[in-house]
Amino acid sequence: MSGNEDKTSRFPAVGEDGAHSPDGRFYKEEIELALRNKGMPLEALRHDVTPATMHYLLVHFDVPAVDAREWRLEIKGALANPLSLSLEEIKQRPAVSTTVTMECAGNGRALLEPRLINQPWGLSAVSTAEWTGTPLAALLAEAGLADEAVEIVFTGLDEGVQGDEVQFYQRSLTIDEAMRPEVLLAYEMNRETLPPPHGYPLRLIVPDWYGMASVKWLDRIEAVGEPFEGYQMVSSYRISRSADELGEPVTLLKVRALMAPPGIPDFLTRQRLVRSGPVVLQGRAWAGRAAIARVEVSVDGGQSWADADLADRVSPFAWTAWSFTWDAEPGRHTLSVRATDDAGNTQPVDPPWTYHGMANNMVQRVDVLVE
Amino acid sequence: MSGNEDKTSRFPAVGEDGAHSPDGRFYKEEIELALRNKGMPLEALRHDVTPATMHYLLVHFDVPAVDAREWRLEIKGALANPLSLSLEEIKQRPAVSTTVTMECAGNGRALLEPRLINQPWGLSAVSTAEWTGTPLAALLAEAGLADEAVEIVFTGLDEGVQGDEVQFYQRSLTIDEAMRPEVLLAYEMNRETLPPPHGYPLRLIVPDWYGMASVKWLDRIEAVGEPFEGYQMVSSYRISRSADELGEPVTLLKVRALMAPPGIPDFLTRQRLVRSGPVVLQGRAWAGRAAIARVEVSVDGGQSWADADLADRVSPFAWTAWSFTWDAEPGRHTLSVRATDDAGNTQPVDPPWTYHGMANNMVQRVDVLVE
Repeated sequence: MSGNEDKTSRFPAVGEDGAHSPDGRFYKEEIELALRNKGMPLEALRHDVTPATMHYLLVHFDVPAVDAREWRLEIKGALANPLSLSLEEIKQRPAVSTTVTMECAGNGRALLEPRLINQPWGLSAVSTAEWTGTPLAALLAEAGLADEAVEIVFTGLDEGVQGDEVQFYQRSLTIDEAMRPEVLLAYEMNRETLPPPHGYPLRLIVPDWYGMASVKWLDRIEAVGEPFEGYQMVSSYRISRSADELGEPVTLLKVRALMAPPGIPDFLTRQRLVRSGPVVLQGRAWAGRAAIARVEVSVDGGQSWADADLADRVSPFAWTAWSFTWDAEPGRHTLSVRATDDAGNTQPVDPPWTYHGMANNMVQRVDVLVE
Repeated sequence: MSGNEDKTSRFPAVGEDGAHSPDGRFYKEEIELALRNKGMPLEALRHDVTPATMHYLLVHFDVPAVDAREWRLEIKGALANPLSLSLEEIKQRPAVSTTVTMECAGNGRALLEPRLINQPWGLSAVSTAEWTGTPLAALLAEAGLADEAVEIVFTGLDEGVQGDEVQFYQRSLTIDEAMRPEVLLAYEMNRETLPPPHGYPLRLIVPDWYGMASVKWLDRIEAVGEPFEGYQMVSSYRISRSADELGEPVTLLKVRALMAPPGIPDFLTRQRLVRSGPVVLQGRAWAGRAAIARVEVSVDGGQSWADADLADRVSPFAWTAWSFTWDAEPGRHTLSVRATDDAGNTQPVDPPWTYHGMANNMVQRVDVLVE
């Protein structure tokens, strides 16, 4: 299922076993992916809304060059009234702004062992932005979905090779998910024109889902009569135990909390130096289509846990701020945080291993030296 | 000279030999640095001015939280009239906008072997932005520099540990360099408020120099009577052959050209797939305080070179666009580009190895498969 295992692949395999790396070291291809695909520095957890220059980014192929004056969105397939809309025509429709916490499905992958050789996220692939656009549901209603339509396929302008398959990035949603009122076609991020790497001129925003659903650089939207089985649906973004097992699709965000590491960092190791005394630990917690019920902090490596204070969340689709005052005593300590949602789901201490390294919501550990 | 070698360091050494990695694999600490410190995806070479969300970023410690309403810039030391200025007072002074190509001194470090364990830049740590601010020279003149002043020290609000030394980021310039008319105190990037990771509310911009000179999150500016010997002047940003050799300081940008890789990428390896026929290769070239005289392209792995066409440069402190039409025939090819400045300096094919991995301006190689 992975292109690395395909002996006829156009490009050489990466790593000694071709798919997974067994130890704590990484390959130059992973470094290049890490330099292209940007994490949110965790100190940005202080912001309700992440500045656009600090928002995480995963770009599968290249950021495409788009001339918005010539660009049009095609809406077609199993529907009565196909549409072809300019950016101006889309902006003339009702506008909605929604603050959304987005997380990459691969967040936490680099903490797995062995791990798939792929974008090597630590824990920084999450951010929150305010997206402005027009609801998709109204456009689909206007286009008159046919009775036989079961899914909507979204195609981006970004083209590349993955698993040795030449492809434009494509993902689908069921009709029910596509018609939810919070799903937007967005042309602004944080009240500014959508930046090129975030999908200029138009992207899909699917709140509560992992980020792969929010297709960027939209080219066309098609209603189809069969479930879509493109590469990004069946060969990636799966929760499975092997390359051969199809497993379950990645969908809604799993519950997670993160902490802004306290004190000051060591440049190279990123380990933290904290001055002794009261330290206010702060961060954010979120879960897809659920509210955060509880956030707990451990300052002794996970032996004991205490409740953090929760703030109101920024929007129904965004994270919840938490804080906890710790009396830091000199020495080495490991700080952890874990969240529980209102459906009773909580985070595991040990990483939930999957073949593709998706949806690893294990608890964060932050090593600090208090002086 | 490196903290890795200091057995009394607060934090553990990274890597097996503690300072340099001998083979093609990387450590998890390097991955975390690569995820924090952002490269410019090379397809952004298409832009005269890099969008802020695609501009490279090197943040030594954490992005500091600054309340601009309370922030003040202190200008003090060996001068007659110390100043303390609010952001509004700085904005009321004459404003200048300058388009500047900035490059990290460590760009190309990961292509060295062995390489210092440090921010593992490939070739993407370069970008161009339009900075708006007020010239530093006028403020220094107003402050009345004393005769004994030999350097100006710039201190940021970003604090951390490097080489086991707790420090705020600090760099100095000689009086002559600090008084050059193009040196700015900038509060806007690309005509927007300076984003937090780029130095909000105020940063120094030193055109023609590697990026380490352009101190972010300015806290104070001090005129001093002796050359400043802080960590970022004498223990880092040096061109030397060993940890013990002081070597030469990193200063002006060395000549370099880069190419936007043609065709489409493989997701994992970033190798390129190109359709056969005429392909317009495009990119940018730059050199500090010199103009680009010539850009040459090789499509046969460096055996032969041909001149590219040059455009006018965007500003006296910014890169020059180049283009070259290649008739791509099916098969595997290695594309390269090299620039020569008007002082006759050109790029080496082999990497110029230095202990700290600074100023490696070796020629870029791009592997492509034409089908």
